[in-house]
Amino acid sequence: MRTIHVIGIGAGDPDQLTLQAVKALKSTDVFFVLDKGEVKSDLVQLRRDILDAHLPEGTYRLAEARDPERDRVAGGSAYSPAVGDWRSARADIYERLIAEELGEDDTGAFLVWGDPALYDSTLGILEEILDRGTVTFSYDVIPGISSVSALVAKHRTGLNRVARPVQITTGRRLAEGLPEGVDDVVVMLDAHQTFRQYADQDIDIYWGAYIGTPDEILVSGPLAETAELIERLRAEARERKGWIMDTYLLRRNPRD
Amino acid sequence: MRTIHVIGIGAGDPDQLTLQAVKALKSTDVFFVLDKGEVKSDLVQLRRDILDAHLPEGTYRLAEARDPERDRVAGGSAYSPAVGDWRSARADIYERLIAEELGEDDTGAFLVWGDPALYDSTLGILEEILDRGTVTFSYDVIPGISSVSALVAKHRTGLNRVARPVQITTGRRLAEGLPEGVDDVVVMLDAHQTFRQYADQDIDIYWGAYIGTPDEILVSGPLAETAELIERLRAEARERKGWIMDTYLLRRNPRD
Ligand SMILES: C[S@@+](CC[C@H](N)C(=O)[O-])C[C@H]1O[C@@H](n2cnc3c(N)ncnc32)[C@H](O)[C@@H]1O
Ligand SMILES: C[S@@+](CC[C@H](N)C(=O)[O-])C[C@H]1O[C@@H](n2cnc3c(N)ncnc32)[C@H](O)[C@@H]1O
Repeated sequence: MRTIHVIGIGAGDPDQLTLQAVKALKSTDVFFVLDKGEVKSDLVQLRRDILDAHLPEGTYRLAEARDPERDRVAGGSAYSPAVGDWRSARADIYERLIAEELGEDDTGAFLVWGDPALYDSTLGILEEILDRGTVTFSYDVIPGISSVSALVAKHRTGLNRVARPVQITTGRRLAEGLPEGVDDVVVMLDAHQTFRQYADQDIDIYWGAYIGTPDEILVSGPLAETAELIERLRAEARERKGWIMDTYLLRRNPRD
Repeated sequence: MRTIHVIGIGAGDPDQLTLQAVKALKSTDVFFVLDKGEVKSDLVQLRRDILDAHLPEGTYRLAEARDPERDRVAGGSAYSPAVGDWRSARADIYERLIAEELGEDDTGAFLVWGDPALYDSTLGILEEILDRGTVTFSYDVIPGISSVSALVAKHRTGLNRVARPVQITTGRRLAEGLPEGVDDVVVMLDAHQTFRQYADQDIDIYWGAYIGTPDEILVSGPLAETAELIERLRAEARERKGWIMDTYLLRRNPRD
């Protein structure tokens, strides 16, 4: 039976791999890698560094393919209505890679950024492939440190306040309003600095970009005082590097 | 300058330590341990096993104290109104341990269950001690795999559905109603199986107890079909071991 590990590798710092993830790497014969083109090649490099650090050369294989172009909506935000099609296109590619590159008793692995449980399509794609029924395999999931955990650790704050809830959402959803009934909100996949919309409210922000990497930038403070600074730092960094990944926690102060 | 690491150690599986956490353990002179009495001695043992696995005997010290009794409300749920007092009582103890047991150039550490960012008081207590100004130290936070990440990894599902939010909350809050505007809800600190309240709705549950430990129990399925089973398994396990820790994801199916 073919086996596949879905391995969370942390969100930037190679030392945020777990011991369990390292063991899974060592038991893997074939790593599946989707090449996303030049833009995020730093991220591809980080994956390679992780393999180099833990596996002797020649003990594993890479099975590479070109990532299908995602039909991005104007503005380049995270999820377009075409997400379903795009997922199926990816499933086609993974299905072929698994069928062609993974021997009957081999173990394959996907290295997933952060924690595979947060805004990642790998698990959905594997289920789609199994539903089709043309290749069979078993798979397991190895949790990773998400960019959310990495963000708040760097800011030395909690996700929730005592006995209170926390919500994790997207920039697109935040644009529709602050969620009801929760004062701590983590925002991912925000291409539009949506926090600016709330700069007139009594909210603290804990923002981080490229968290865990040598380019890491952290800013925290009242939104009214930091929103412009973050906007400027973000634009400069994005210009300099050609891409950016940032996450932030908004903490609404109690009204009384 | 005294240094303190707040180290997330994962929620049960010692292999869920990160490489960064292992490095922090190795750079620690004194581990602060609060003894909670007999009840959760399995958990104390797990911390000891982690130290034994990574540190040669005689290379570190334990600084132990008795945990202040928390003034629990009837029913024994997680957070009582006395939480502020209890936190200050803990701060008193930690302050004394740091002042008396940590030399000026020493490094101390707290081993925190799961991820220090989720429903844990350590960071708040350290800030309270620093505010008092009687001892000084610097500290950093090493993120850990939370029981939330461990839960969904074992169930091989995501926390959120595509482009949708997820909320993390407590059993006590869930008793007041399902949160608005979010269909994926993770519940922690639930001593009353509050999920039963929603067994008439079209909701799937992904439940886990003692996740990552040899006693792990996992159940998933439609709430209407699994609520009783979970209730029974939970009661039996709690009876057998004398304590239980469980977490679950409720996934409301779209109405249409
Ligand atoms: C497709 S999601 C994947 C999230 C990932 N599974 C995780 O657990 O962090 C990508 C989003 O994660 C966040 N992100 C990932 N890595 C990050 C990093 N190193 N610094 C800041 N944000 C990051 C950003 O919000 C980005 O838009
Ligand atoms: C005080 S909170 C601490 C949470 C911890 N910081 C974390 O990241 O998981 C304790 C709650 O965490 C959850 N929990 C912790 N460890 C668990 C485990 N091994 N299995 C199931 N639930 C767990 C339970 O909901 C429990 O009531």
